[in-house]
Amino acid sequence: DPYLKVFSLNSNPELAQEIAEHVGVELGKSSVKRFSDGEVQINIEESIRGCDVFVVQSTSAPVNEHLMELLIMVDALKRASARTINIVMPYYGYARQDRKARSREPITSKLVADLLETAGADRVITLDLHAAQIQGFFNIPIDHLVGVKILSQHFLEKNLDDVVVVSPDHGGVTRARMLADRLKAPIAIIDKRRPRPNVAEVMNIVGNVEGKTAILIDDIIDTAGTITLAANAMMENGAKEVYACCTHPVLSGPAIERIDNSKIKELAVTNSIPLTEEKQSPKITQLSVGKLIAESIKRVHEHRSISSLFD
Amino acid sequence: DPYLKVFSLNSNPELAQEIAEHVGVELGKSSVKRFSDGEVQINIEESIRGCDVFVVQSTSAPVNEHLMELLIMVDALKRASARTINIVMPYYGYARQDRKARSREPITSKLVADLLETAGADRVITLDLHAAQIQGFFNIPIDHLVGVKILSQHFLEKNLDDVVVVSPDHGGVTRARMLADRLKAPIAIIDKRRPRPNVAEVMNIVGNVEGKTAILIDDIIDTAGTITLAANAMMENGAKEVYACCTHPVLSGPAIERIDNSKIKELAVTNSIPLTEEKQSPKITQLSVGKLIAESIKRVHEHRSISSLFD
Ligand SMILES: Nc1ncnc2c1ncn2[C@@H]1O[C@H](COP(=O)(O)O)[C@@H](O)[C@H]1O
Ligand SMILES: Nc1ncnc2c1ncn2[C@@H]1O[C@H](COP(=O)(O)O)[C@@H](O)[C@H]1O
Repeated sequence: DPYLKVFSLNSNPELAQEIAEHVGVELGKSSVKRFSDGEVQINIEESIRGCDVFVVQSTSAPVNEHLMELLIMVDALKRASARTINIVMPYYGYARQDRKARSREPITSKLVADLLETAGADRVITLDLHAAQIQGFFNIPIDHLVGVKILSQHFLEKNLDDVVVVSPDHGGVTRARMLADRLKAPIAIIDKRRPRPNVAEVMNIVGNVEGKTAILIDDIIDTAGTITLAANAMMENGAKEVYACCTHPVLSGPAIERIDNSKIKELAVTNSIPLTEEKQSPKITQLSVGKLIAESIKRVHEHRSISSLFD
Repeated sequence: DPYLKVFSLNSNPELAQEIAEHVGVELGKSSVKRFSDGEVQINIEESIRGCDVFVVQSTSAPVNEHLMELLIMVDALKRASARTINIVMPYYGYARQDRKARSREPITSKLVADLLETAGADRVITLDLHAAQIQGFFNIPIDHLVGVKILSQHFLEKNLDDVVVVSPDHGGVTRARMLADRLKAPIAIIDKRRPRPNVAEVMNIVGNVEGKTAILIDDIIDTAGTITLAANAMMENGAKEVYACCTHPVLSGPAIERIDNSKIKELAVTNSIPLTEEKQSPKITQLSVGKLIAESIKRVHEHRSISSLFD
């Protein structure tokens, strides 16, 4: 289909290639470089006039570079007369700044939504937002995909028995429930609380993990403090072994060291963020969301092709 | 005046301090840091409710970091109920991407204008835009200051005689004329042209430089190729000595090496972009725009204070 184009920027070139293959097109030709002073230099090297264009870019680290590349690309596509500009953002950076937790804080994830719309985005396809409410920050359609199918498939293939799915905090219980349903397993919750100020947190476990294979699940693993402490708590409470999984392997700072030194047997993640060289660990298995995203792109484009018959 | 606040971000802390002193206020308290994964973390640490807030930030390198800091700061100020948010951007990054020079290019300087408005800016104070047309990219008031007064003052104090002010290209003739008026000097223009494709450019000089003190002027010096070749052309055409000046010392890549090895006796620049460690050269003199900007801030705020009597 000559009216469907998939472009990659610099965050996820391999995933973009895989998506293009699943969709059945060649990756669009463009060059995304830097001028001598560090300014983003973008050239789209083929006509996209009248096309539905999908741009694959996670706003993973370096987040500000990746976000600006994306905004500038959207501007260039708009001026080059794309029919629709669809942003495929497997990892939505700044998602954790989604409310004012303190006075005079920004709400950067709303700002990012506004910036994307201002640049000219018509639609966003994303995966496991840190808070589903971020969908409401947009006035354009947003397709919110769910990575739990991919993670559950991975664990189903292992034929683990006596599994319990564990949420490392209260905020993640719904996510744990979704995984548990697919694994036909019960859930448990780590109920952290600080008895008094300046006293270490107590990790109370709601549910039974004794003798079981615990699978911890979170949306983002960043510095890996939460997940590795949760893994310890599992073992201390008699779990047989501990697996962990998340959609978005941010893995900054001490994350890899903590995971390598932890009780976690294996960490399954998706490729919403690529595992660059500093993020390699024998414990990490990466699963692709390429097919999931490609199917979403095909659905979006099919619908537009049909509706264009009536344009 | 408790309703006038000046905040600094990370591009120009010294200039911001100087501006605050000239305006007669303390710099606003805020912290602008990074989370472990590189996301910008901003906290405004004093109330700014009902205030006219001026945020000092050039979008110099690293341009994307500085721009995102600024957008996020504006978001935070807006949500903290600032009366007006005024951006003081001595150097406007991405200004050279102000038109489609080729097909399917972005117009990033227009995008930046839209992003600033979307974030919540009410006014922009800037200095020597690469193209004055960028003013029209904004729907909010923009105060366009001119650095030529500061540069001319510097050269007047030297009591140079037999000066000619030289524009290194056609685009800069108006700027050269402004400096020449103040120095009561004639102008000359370097008229580059390429006789045939793939043949070196010929540097023809329109005007007389023989036996004179040439002062080259440009708005931005980036890699310093243009200005150092122009200086050579001056000497080859019999100039006695060559000075150079510009408002914005971008000075990326080979710039410092080229300047050090050039025929340029002295390069005068402003502090719209600070001269970081890699940008030090015995040939460079930096002149401050602090007072110029402070006066502009005072004018803006005075007017608002008067008009608020009628609110
Ligand atoms: N990139 C980040 N890294 C760490 N913490 C963040 C980041 N962005 C926002 N936060 C903070 O994380 C908190 C929200 O996280 P959560 O409670 O998990 O939704 C807020 O207090 C934010 O200030
Ligand atoms: N940061 C940059 N560094 C070098 N060249 C640039 C930069 N941004 C834009 N340009 C190019 O510079 C040209 C405009 O410069 P000018 O003719 O001096 O206005 C355009 O062709 C742009 O593609």
